[in-house]
Amino acid sequence: MRGLRGADVDVTLIDRQNFYLFQPLAYQVATGSLSPDEVAVPLRQITRRQRNTRVILGEVVGFDLDARNVVVDRLPNGAPSLQLPYDVLVVGGGSRYSYFGHDDWATYAPELKTLDGALHLRDSILLAFEAAETETDEATREAWLTFVVVGAGPTGVEMAGQIAELGRTLRREYRAVDTTKTRVLLIEATEHVLGAFPDPLPRKAETQLRSLGVTPMLSATVVDIDSRSVTVQAPDGSRTTIATRTAVWAAGVTASPLAGLLAEASGAETDRVGRIVVEPDLTVAGHPEVFALGDMVSVRGQQLHGVAPVAMQQGRHAARSIRSGTRETFRYRDKGELATIGHVRAVGVVKGVKLSGFPAWALWLGIHIAYLIGFQNRLLVLTRWTFSYFTRGRGARVIHRS
Amino acid sequence: MRGLRGADVDVTLIDRQNFYLFQPLAYQVATGSLSPDEVAVPLRQITRRQRNTRVILGEVVGFDLDARNVVVDRLPNGAPSLQLPYDVLVVGGGSRYSYFGHDDWATYAPELKTLDGALHLRDSILLAFEAAETETDEATREAWLTFVVVGAGPTGVEMAGQIAELGRTLRREYRAVDTTKTRVLLIEATEHVLGAFPDPLPRKAETQLRSLGVTPMLSATVVDIDSRSVTVQAPDGSRTTIATRTAVWAAGVTASPLAGLLAEASGAETDRVGRIVVEPDLTVAGHPEVFALGDMVSVRGQQLHGVAPVAMQQGRHAARSIRSGTRETFRYRDKGELATIGHVRAVGVVKGVKLSGFPAWALWLGIHIAYLIGFQNRLLVLTRWTFSYFTRGRGARVIHRS
Repeated sequence: MRGLRGADVDVTLIDRQNFYLFQPLAYQVATGSLSPDEVAVPLRQITRRQRNTRVILGEVVGFDLDARNVVVDRLPNGAPSLQLPYDVLVVGGGSRYSYFGHDDWATYAPELKTLDGALHLRDSILLAFEAAETETDEATREAWLTFVVVGAGPTGVEMAGQIAELGRTLRREYRAVDTTKTRVLLIEATEHVLGAFPDPLPRKAETQLRSLGVTPMLSATVVDIDSRSVTVQAPDGSRTTIATRTAVWAAGVTASPLAGLLAEASGAETDRVGRIVVEPDLTVAGHPEVFALGDMVSVRGQQLHGVAPVAMQQGRHAARSIRSGTRETFRYRDKGELATIGHVRAVGVVKGVKLSGFPAWALWLGIHIAYLIGFQNRLLVLTRWTFSYFTRGRGARVIHRS
Repeated sequence: MRGLRGADVDVTLIDRQNFYLFQPLAYQVATGSLSPDEVAVPLRQITRRQRNTRVILGEVVGFDLDARNVVVDRLPNGAPSLQLPYDVLVVGGGSRYSYFGHDDWATYAPELKTLDGALHLRDSILLAFEAAETETDEATREAWLTFVVVGAGPTGVEMAGQIAELGRTLRREYRAVDTTKTRVLLIEATEHVLGAFPDPLPRKAETQLRSLGVTPMLSATVVDIDSRSVTVQAPDGSRTTIATRTAVWAAGVTASPLAGLLAEASGAETDRVGRIVVEPDLTVAGHPEVFALGDMVSVRGQQLHGVAPVAMQQGRHAARSIRSGTRETFRYRDKGELATIGHVRAVGVVKGVKLSGFPAWALWLGIHIAYLIGFQNRLLVLTRWTFSYFTRGRGARVIHRS
């Protein structure tokens, strides 16, 4: 959308939310480091000076590719659904977590793809410490201080590390309970944490996690979650039930429902995680006027991770194609990947160079500040991080108890 | 509580929420200027180094003054209610808005005494602009762009001024609608805005409000509110119905239910707004070990406003009395009062000197930054204000649509 600034086109941006969430930092909202508005920029502020662009708050519920119409529902004025005509359509609905068919687990193990999910998680995590402080039964108190994170990809690793740090940070704030006894279990179905990273980074990440107090449980599959426990199964079939009141879901990912809607409208295929398969130029087969991109697509003939740099480069590619009228093959330029684990702990590979510890962490900080939208948000986040660095305190800890 | 730091006493701080809300800036959360955590400091962070103090998250639901027990409910671990013994009790439950017996109005005209109330108001106000942008019927669009604020005390004046400024600020962000046509009506039952301020400040405030585009409707009493309109009545009995979708309640105030509970337990009187009448030394009659203070009390023989400086001085007085074991008459030292209206607009009286315009506004800024708890929050708020001053933008505009 920003790539169309100043172009001779009229742009309509439709979103269910009135803000752009900088999703890579959502976990810091969930763990009390940042306030919601510091990682969420109003869409209208972003498009303020982009005079060819209008914003509509609403939910896309259908595509009519023959009539070239998009159906928009949940309009803020309560009007019936709107038919919006287009010449060129760009769809980027992202992804969400999948509970592998156990949608009831979502109640006990929330996820943090959305801002509301992050705030809900913050409530659960902070209330668990509060509950431990008032709990008199020792076994129950231990359950309150036990946190289970499911999935050891970058998000799961970040969450596990942050919760472990939180336990240390809160040490001096509680009187009845010793929060340094917080147990964080990181459950992963494969044999490694950060399995998508090259050797030896998964092993280094594991060491860094252990030094923070996180216990990785590898080759373990979650078979049940309820309000009191998480049950995992080892490859030999043996099961372990962990007494916990707080679980975080960061495992399987599935495409936005928009991928399915678009596939249905166009006859395109979807893959096993619900992503629509698009042509190498990012258009939908038979529809050179329809682009689909980001986490909700699988580019034919390319194996791309569902990470922010891919989506961003695809967005720029679509904007260039629209401006020039050409349809060229999208090529991802892999500049690397970083995952932060905690205070001065991170791993990553940047332009082929493998990093871990302080250099990876410093680079992670710099890149995340740079990619935040808006100078004000950069300053605010930098202020919070500077304070956290020196005081180890966390200032964004409002619990919204319903 | 902070006045008891280092004293030879054990302090238990019980609160329904895990944070201290800096209420004078709640309206800036409601109007998209500040993010929730920037005006809410975790109680545990405040008491971190105060080793004689423990914090319990829970709701006080009863007092037994003979047995010297407080009953605490809604504990975070779901345990049944707790009986907490005390030697000295300090109760400061604050106040809330009163809908003059029309509690159904609360649905259509939310208030902003609480953080959740402020966020709810933010959603309503920002969604009204979004709705106007998608609305095609002109009369309905005008209703979406009409905002009614009930009550022209400091909070009502601040809210009305901020909404009018918001309309100007958003000017360049909307395409279909002209947000400078936003109508803000400020309804007040008496003849003046800011009636508690000395002449000529109410008139000056009125002029400043008008220059911002706010229309004060004085000597007007609200007689009905529903989802589509607010109806007011003039002294001559004639009624006017204003078509609006967004109303803000900032009128009558009533004491926290804790005042009633404490009055019932002690046999003390309450006044017509539900405040408990306390002795001049801030203790409850017949109970020198029980202090009550803040907006929920009326001090016998003194006429005090329900403003933050009174509550703060009373808190310090109670702490001194506890430390020294004496019970002396509380004397309020009135340093003045300020009300901000909008960009470079404010009125106030400080140590007897009446101020308006820039000097009042600058002083308001300085005092509010100084009284914010925590150096980090001061920096964050100052950063936001500096950006707003120069760009007139508002960066904290996340709508949490349910």
